[in-house]
Amino acid sequence: MTEIALDFADRLGRVQQAAKSAGIDALLITPGADLRWLVGYHALPLDRLTCLAVPASGEPFLVVPRLEQPAAEASGAGRWVPIVTHEETDDAFAVTAGRLRDAVGANPSTVAVSDRMWAQNVLRWSRRMPGTELSLAGDLIRPLRLIKTRDEVDALRRAATAIDAVHTRMGEWLRPGRTEREVARDIAVAITDAGHDQVNFVIVASGRNGASPHHEVSDRVIETGDPVVVDIGGTMPDGYCSDCTRTYVTGGTPPGDFAAYYKVLLDGQIAACDAVRPGVTAEAVDAAARDVIAAAGFGAAFVHRTGHGIGLEEHEEPWIVAGNPTRLEPGMCFSIEPGIYLAGRHGARIEDIVVCTGNGVDRLDTVDRDLVLLD
Amino acid sequence: MTEIALDFADRLGRVQQAAKSAGIDALLITPGADLRWLVGYHALPLDRLTCLAVPASGEPFLVVPRLEQPAAEASGAGRWVPIVTHEETDDAFAVTAGRLRDAVGANPSTVAVSDRMWAQNVLRWSRRMPGTELSLAGDLIRPLRLIKTRDEVDALRRAATAIDAVHTRMGEWLRPGRTEREVARDIAVAITDAGHDQVNFVIVASGRNGASPHHEVSDRVIETGDPVVVDIGGTMPDGYCSDCTRTYVTGGTPPGDFAAYYKVLLDGQIAACDAVRPGVTAEAVDAAARDVIAAAGFGAAFVHRTGHGIGLEEHEEPWIVAGNPTRLEPGMCFSIEPGIYLAGRHGARIEDIVVCTGNGVDRLDTVDRDLVLLD
Repeated sequence: MTEIALDFADRLGRVQQAAKSAGIDALLITPGADLRWLVGYHALPLDRLTCLAVPASGEPFLVVPRLEQPAAEASGAGRWVPIVTHEETDDAFAVTAGRLRDAVGANPSTVAVSDRMWAQNVLRWSRRMPGTELSLAGDLIRPLRLIKTRDEVDALRRAATAIDAVHTRMGEWLRPGRTEREVARDIAVAITDAGHDQVNFVIVASGRNGASPHHEVSDRVIETGDPVVVDIGGTMPDGYCSDCTRTYVTGGTPPGDFAAYYKVLLDGQIAACDAVRPGVTAEAVDAAARDVIAAAGFGAAFVHRTGHGIGLEEHEEPWIVAGNPTRLEPGMCFSIEPGIYLAGRHGARIEDIVVCTGNGVDRLDTVDRDLVLLD
Repeated sequence: MTEIALDFADRLGRVQQAAKSAGIDALLITPGADLRWLVGYHALPLDRLTCLAVPASGEPFLVVPRLEQPAAEASGAGRWVPIVTHEETDDAFAVTAGRLRDAVGANPSTVAVSDRMWAQNVLRWSRRMPGTELSLAGDLIRPLRLIKTRDEVDALRRAATAIDAVHTRMGEWLRPGRTEREVARDIAVAITDAGHDQVNFVIVASGRNGASPHHEVSDRVIETGDPVVVDIGGTMPDGYCSDCTRTYVTGGTPPGDFAAYYKVLLDGQIAACDAVRPGVTAEAVDAAARDVIAAAGFGAAFVHRTGHGIGLEEHEEPWIVAGNPTRLEPGMCFSIEPGIYLAGRHGARIEDIVVCTGNGVDRLDTVDRDLVLLD
């Protein structure tokens, strides 16, 4: 595992500063990418409460069930924040609220909770701290996580290289006569073999299944000449994610109109990649792909946004979508993945992870984007 | 894939009845086990809103992003509820709230949301429906999901058989000189090969790592004579989960006191299994294991509850824990998994999934519980 140089104390300090500026008394962060980003702890999402409390002023602390204490300690989080344990029969919310009250000096009047905190916890906090106004911690943390450091970009590049290596081996598994599910199993093993800790998804969408953007796998037997959309991703040991899509044709001849619209799609994907540079808006990148595809008459067949940010999560900001005026900055990492979907027939998608650099774009996935005809 | 005989219309009807009885106007169910249990749709948890709205009276409906429509249709959910799509630039919350208002006939005054609905959605609903009191849908659905049908027990038995098959092969992978991570990779492949769709977790906790109940894997090299806790589980194609723990010794001689406390642990695990029958409380099952272990002087080393329910989720009710007075009923399925953890040294855990039957217990995992000495 390659270690990423991290400065959790700096991150905690910047979040506290953001909270102060926003008039938020404290953040409550349950397991997820924000927790990992803040203190390096990749916690299990459990019914037992694990929660990082970050008062705007004062010392943050991490509450964990006693049986998670060794895992929390092993994560190194204890170097940045004290770890407070609760027993199986304790009221963990009371423990946390009490200590938070001590840190804030009163009942906090405004608390920001993890965007993906479970409702069961949100409602418990509401009852435990009546009168406290709840908001979303993502509003404070997202702007910080949005800009990747050089180390983070390197981590995403390693993830991209790993998933690219799986795509280059696709001919070993993707053949007529096999089911999507069989192919997907082989791919999943290869994703792990390529260095990922975890397989996040394996989409093998053959023939008419390719017309569904989020079809995963089925028992459909792949036929000769099928277009097959293969969209795969995983998480590396350092927590950073990969995500890359290529479209293949399994021998023989693809449907008559397929090669032509694949060329349109590729032109659109390249146009969007070429549009990336500091100051350009996210929606302009979306439009760059969409305009090419629409001009060729396939606008209605491109049913989703052009891309999503990536980092410790497969899908995070920035969203590359119409209506998002966010201006790109160096260090923003995201997917460029237009698709064309012909309902009931077939479809295609091409996806790379790119990073906005100081003066343009760096494509982290480098595997060939041309249509791959497998023998 | 073996199909489970399902009656989603019946489940929806029972939930509506429960809502009426509790004075809840509607449920809002986002992706997760409740959604799958209610309409058979295994939806991706996305930032885009997918939400099943179930008014206490009137027609339930499923809101999905347009690009998820094919997947939603493929799940068969459309046979039970109309599927309403929203476009990339729609306000999905407005779409849902508007239609729900039409169904209820007014702004709902009480809405129950998924226990694990993300805070970002909870707070949006709060803003969208000011004055509406939020509660947890789990309070209504849990009592229904808690009792498994015969078909569900059969599904859990198939999952248990699949994970047992992996344990019987452990000697192929678990050897001195290999790292926990290497062993875990092989196990993950075997979990898939045994018929699971998804690997949920692979814990390989060797030597002193075995003293941490939720240690996952590390680059620690396994040594001769190490006790190794292997706790593994996955999800079958029908959505039902497996979870089974065995403790191994990798050749040579285990530490001096290990075999003795393993015997205590096994006696405790057997005592808890034997305690299961209708009418017995969950806490009494916990006590059955704990009493045996405490009597032998290891009470402080058994730091977690005895077990958790299992079904479409790895961890669900009933919790087999001190303070839970729930009386067991036929069809309740849960783990029995006491452990003994000696900090800084080693540990052991034994886990089976069991079902409470009409007059006792049926152990779904049948792989031998004795300490396994690998050559």
